Amino acid sequence: MTEVIDIESKFNLINEYWSPNLLGEVNDSCVKIAKFKNSFDWHSHPEEDEMFLIIKGEITIHLRDKDLHLKPGQCVIISRGVEHKPVAQAEAWVMMFEPKSTVNTGDNILSKHTKTEIPAI
Amino acid sequence: MTEVIDIESKFNLINEYWSPNLLGEVNDSCVKIAKFKNSFDWHSHPEEDEMFLIIKGEITIHLRDKDLHLKPGQCVIISRGVEHKPVAQAEAWVMMFEPKSTVNTGDNILSKHTKTEIPAI
Repeated sequence: MTEVIDIESKFNLINEYWSPNLLGEVNDSCVKIAKFKNSFDWHSHPEEDEMFLIIKGEITIHLRDKDLHLKPGQCVIISRGVEHKPVAQAEAWVMMFEPKSTVNTGDNILSKHTKTEIPAI
Repeated sequence: MTEVIDIESKFNLINEYWSPNLLGEVNDSCVKIAKFKNSFDWHSHPEEDEMFLIIKGEITIHLRDKDLHLKPGQCVIISRGVEHKPVAQAEAWVMMFEPKSTVNTGDNILSKHTKTEIPAI
């Protein structure tokens, strides 16, 4: 079925921070949404690029050489292999485009944020 | 370079309707933006899914069996093979997520809207 997806309504179903939810699949990629708050772990995705699009709130993505500050209506593509650490001072709503295979914590095998199951929302 | 992309600023550079511009590449997919106004042609993409995310304005996507009305903050994934005809009564700003290979008019070889070059913006 081809249906309109209301992004705000979907975010309102999310209760957990840093936990990606599957909005849909487009070819070999997934559209995921997550609420960010406080600090995530440093990680990278050796084989996968990742796009972050801010829907609500503000986030900072720390890179090793600079910080990226993102507001609603802004996005960034983090290329494969680039270490990054997302942080949100207050709750932020973020849409992500990435391959189906992408694990949220990438190569950081010590992270407690790792989600291997991405529930459809 | 990993840089913040301000979507509104990019749209302000677009002067032509129905002409996709490349915002960035994420793995095997492209993030494109286009301004819609008036009526596009019926077409489908036999091998490619396509996501439309509304940034500003409103659009209707006619399908053969129903119409989808989309506002800012709403999106839809048109699966491969599904015939669709986008329409915008007034100017609308749309982000699309699709494979690099996707041609805007799909299988409609008679369309005058076809763009084979997608300039980076």
